[in-house]
Amino acid sequence: MSEAAKTLDGWYVLHDFRTMDWASWKKLESEERESIIAEFRHLLDKWATTQEKFNGSHALYSIVGQKADFMMMLLRPTMDELNELETAFNKTRLAEYTIPMYSYVSVVELSNYLPPDVDPETDPEIQARLKPILPRWQYACFYPMDKRRDGEDNWYMLPMEDRKAMMRSHGMIGRKYAGKVRQIISGSVGFDDWEWGVTLFAHDVLEFKKLVYEMRFDEVSARYGEFGSFYVGTYLDEDSLSKFLYI
Amino acid sequence: MSEAAKTLDGWYVLHDFRTMDWASWKKLESEERESIIAEFRHLLDKWATTQEKFNGSHALYSIVGQKADFMMMLLRPTMDELNELETAFNKTRLAEYTIPMYSYVSVVELSNYLPPDVDPETDPEIQARLKPILPRWQYACFYPMDKRRDGEDNWYMLPMEDRKAMMRSHGMIGRKYAGKVRQIISGSVGFDDWEWGVTLFAHDVLEFKKLVYEMRFDEVSARYGEFGSFYVGTYLDEDSLSKFLYI
Amino acid sequence: MSEAAKTLDGWYVLHDFRTMDWASWKKLESEERESIIAEFRHLLDKWATTQEKFNGSHALYSIVGQKADFMMMLLRPTMDELNELETAFNKTRLAEYTIPMYSYVSVVELSNYLPPDVDPETDPEIQARLKPILPRWQYACFYPMDKRRDGEDNWYMLPMEDRKAMMRSHGMIGRKYAGKVRQIISGSVGFDDWEWGVTLFAHDVLEFKKLVYEMRFDEVSARYGEFGSFYVGTYLDEDSLSKFLYI
Amino acid sequence: MSEAAKTLDGWYVLHDFRTMDWASWKKLESEERESIIAEFRHLLDKWATTQEKFNGSHALYSIVGQKADFMMMLLRPTMDELNELETAFNKTRLAEYTIPMYSYVSVVELSNYLPPDVDPETDPEIQARLKPILPRWQYACFYPMDKRRDGEDNWYMLPMEDRKAMMRSHGMIGRKYAGKVRQIISGSVGFDDWEWGVTLFAHDVLEFKKLVYEMRFDEVSARYGEFGSFYVGTYLDEDSLSKFLYI
Amino acid sequence: MSEAAKTLDGWYVLHDFRTMDWASWKKLESEERESIIAEFRHLLDKWATTQEKFNGSHALYSIVGQKADFMMMLLRPTMDELNELETAFNKTRLAEYTIPMYSYVSVVELSNYLPPDVDPETDPEIQARLKPILPRWQYACFYPMDKRRDGEDNWYMLPMEDRKAMMRSHGMIGRKYAGKVRQIISGSVGFDDWEWGVTLFAHDVLEFKKLVYEMRFDEVSARYGEFGSFYVGTYLDEDSLSKFLYI
Repeated sequence: MSEAAKTLDGWYVLHDFRTMDWASWKKLESEERESIIAEFRHLLDKWATTQEKFNGSHALYSIVGQKADFMMMLLRPTMDELNELETAFNKTRLAEYTIPMYSYVSVVELSNYLPPDVDPETDPEIQARLKPILPRWQYACFYPMDKRRDGEDNWYMLPMEDRKAMMRSHGMIGRKYAGKVRQIISGSVGFDDWEWGVTLFAHDVLEFKKLVYEMRFDEVSARYGEFGSFYVGTYLDEDSLSKFLYI
Repeated sequence: MSEAAKTLDGWYVLHDFRTMDWASWKKLESEERESIIAEFRHLLDKWATTQEKFNGSHALYSIVGQKADFMMMLLRPTMDELNELETAFNKTRLAEYTIPMYSYVSVVELSNYLPPDVDPETDPEIQARLKPILPRWQYACFYPMDKRRDGEDNWYMLPMEDRKAMMRSHGMIGRKYAGKVRQIISGSVGFDDWEWGVTLFAHDVLEFKKLVYEMRFDEVSARYGEFGSFYVGTYLDEDSLSKFLYI
Repeated sequence: MSEAAKTLDGWYVLHDFRTMDWASWKKLESEERESIIAEFRHLLDKWATTQEKFNGSHALYSIVGQKADFMMMLLRPTMDELNELETAFNKTRLAEYTIPMYSYVSVVELSNYLPPDVDPETDPEIQARLKPILPRWQYACFYPMDKRRDGEDNWYMLPMEDRKAMMRSHGMIGRKYAGKVRQIISGSVGFDDWEWGVTLFAHDVLEFKKLVYEMRFDEVSARYGEFGSFYVGTYLDEDSLSKFLYI
Repeated sequence: MSEAAKTLDGWYVLHDFRTMDWASWKKLESEERESIIAEFRHLLDKWATTQEKFNGSHALYSIVGQKADFMMMLLRPTMDELNELETAFNKTRLAEYTIPMYSYVSVVELSNYLPPDVDPETDPEIQARLKPILPRWQYACFYPMDKRRDGEDNWYMLPMEDRKAMMRSHGMIGRKYAGKVRQIISGSVGFDDWEWGVTLFAHDVLEFKKLVYEMRFDEVSARYGEFGSFYVGTYLDEDSLSKFLYI
Repeated sequence: MSEAAKTLDGWYVLHDFRTMDWASWKKLESEERESIIAEFRHLLDKWATTQEKFNGSHALYSIVGQKADFMMMLLRPTMDELNELETAFNKTRLAEYTIPMYSYVSVVELSNYLPPDVDPETDPEIQARLKPILPRWQYACFYPMDKRRDGEDNWYMLPMEDRKAMMRSHGMIGRKYAGKVRQIISGSVGFDDWEWGVTLFAHDVLEFKKLVYEMRFDEVSARYGEFGSFYVGTYLDEDSLSKFLYI
């Protein structure tokens, strides 16, 4: 048996993708729509309070294409809180005008392929990475992924040394994008259908393509990466959310 | 032909995953909702009586993410009883407000890869494992799986000795999680689309990830495991069920 | 080119899986439900008459899990009759309360991998196997399957001798289950998405699991078998059908 | 690069598979149903006129099983005409009572793997095969297929000579079924999701199974064939169409 | 690690495929339909103005077969504009009568496998290719694709030199179709589920088949190409759009 990678685990994450039922939404009286939006903003205010207390974080993004109209990304210290948030949203009146499209359950993760030169329990940088307040950057990209286990290309049969070396080289590519792309890796083994979720943030959406494409030539991705669906979108702040929901 | 593994088989199991039709559920008068919940609780009471008599077991879990809103896990001595339970639930009024999302049919199974030092028919520990009363632990995880039959990685072409040795090493990992994770393996060859269903219970949801990830580096999983969708959720007792259904 | 297997072909078979629209069914007045059931029983009576004349056979099974609520298995001497039966059912009032879930089109088949010591056209046993009156056994299991054509594991590139030897060994496993499991193989090359449909009948549902699992270690299945979805259920006679549809 | 096969291309083909919404269809007044059928027959008359002028062809088949209730197979000299026919059908009142299930876009094709002893542009037999008036045979079978490109089994990397030899042997099997099975191959590279559509016609539906099964042992299919869903059905002439739609 | 290909990136692209809800569309009063069409034409006029200013481009095509009834192809300098266009369309009244079928998010891309003899930032030809005004040609074809990463056939593990040589040979085939087929490659790594989208335009729809089929014998496609669904359709100008929507 190969030596298993150790992980550090932080906040639990729910990515929740929804499409608007525009036809029904448009049929509402303007007043009723306003009241539904007000109820949803009330929920957002509660989430904002949680975030101010560093007890979680969240962000809304409008998704491009038919896979979804918007994504809610929610982080909380416990799985139970995520479950409650999800149920609470499902009971809002806005939810009646949304259609579930995709969701992903995971937990923020740092792996020990990185050099172990700090005590993760107390190191502030590590702690900030495990319990991240989401950046309000203009673009987000989400995709789930696996490490391949296929014939000669079996990540989990490789010696720890080889995996470590490859992950280090992989990390070097990521570092070239520092300041341009912020990345949150969340582990989902035992929680959802892929092994990891990757959430990227950028000021320039093209950086997503550059980063992911450059990495694809790296052995870790080229031989061992399996990728699910990609979702890309633009940040929804108060104003753009109003504009998005306005009829 | 390789020597086939022998199995011990216990209670039949139905995992039944449902999503709430929240929009319709919310439209009901509060009184009607209460009456529907009362009808469902009556069914739960009957299940509880069965469980008290050790003629079966059951548990409800709220599922995180869009794959389902809740799961009913039902165990009974016969397939016929499972079928009746399912039909009975489908005829409740609550069922009208649920949407079927996924289900799994299997039977609790112990395999003879384990050392054969007891008479399974009379051994109380074996019997308790074959006819398990489900633990009321806070978290559950379910996933179906196959043993791979693909080119060089064909579990079913391996000699019994090799399979036995690998399963023993696999079991060693599981033992490290004793007290942290409880596992019920149910066989589904001939009953459903995968060969086994795995149901895990834990007090700390992170243990699911740790266990499944550690096992993935073990040859049994790394080379021979194929995994379906993962469902994770939190325990629904009387109170949390009320809260879950409350509008 | 490898020598193609010759087959003997009997009655055409339609497996038709349906789910009940319980919510709509329950909304009907009890009298209307009775009248709909009476119309369906009239159709069943016609099928029974056909069966008494040995011009076909049929059986209804209640299916466990969400894949379907019940299956109708229909056998007739011609494809045209199957098509008519299907359309006739679709025009019943009961059909309005069912949702199509899956179907399978095939023809009962015996292969010449078996020793050719009889004249199939006149041999009564062969004829009874090609035009089988379905047993009224308590459990049924259905699954479609292919023989694999994948790299080194390509059934159709093997010499006839090797295929024959493997099928003979495979048949030996089946024979061990004589009296416990009855098996109907129906060919579907050119008719449906897999190459064969397998329908098993048993008095003890656990025998399905034992048989299919034991066969999986046999080279024919281990290296060359590809399996679709498995459906398992319990027999619906007049009484249990009434109970099933009763609200 | 391997030498590409040259093709001769004839009429464009649309296979359009629909299921009846029987519940809604049955709810109509008999008079309204008649008027809808009359409108559809008017469309069929126009198609018949086109066929009489050898400007296209068409056929309707009732499909067995839940994949579809009927198929319209339409051939026209241009893609534009197919598109217009499809839209025209979608605007009929009958279409309101049908549910789209599957469709396939292709063009009748003859490949130059066949010996080039004629001038295809003037040869009447070739022209008749490229612009076929569909036979009114009792059974039709449709399936899409690819030539495999997978590791050692890569059709498109083979030398032209090898492909030619294999196709010749493959054609020999087809010839054995002359008079029993008529075959129309239509190419769909660049038009639809598979590389070819295959439509077979027969007087005896069992010939489909015999032909496709025998071919499966031929190297072209055994090593290089990938097959999609199979649809099989019975011919709908004026009478059987009436019977099919009659309530 | 293999040297990554560099790309030049132009306008962002949204392919948006929709099916008409013909039943509902037909139920409208003719006057209401006209008003809905007028609203949509107003949107098209705005798009036309954008195109006249070379700030984007768009085209509508009617799609053959059931995959969609029409496609809107939209190009804009920013992802944000695409997102706004999509939301704006979703809020039109016409959108209420459409059903989303498929969409694709990408960015026009030129790769550096081409000889680097110009400064792309100023070269007018390169700029015109990166920010293309769509040709009003009668036929369009769209499909997404990947470069394969499978065992021995792993594009991303090949040395840059080999990839360059193969792409050059591939480009030679494309050049043979100059004037017959116009091709727009758009990259979607990080944006959507495949690595590239390919949009082809032609005066003769058969050229799509000839081009894609010829390329399939080229090693780049034969060994390294993975293809998604193909969509083919005819150009919708003002007149044909009117005809398409006319009841």
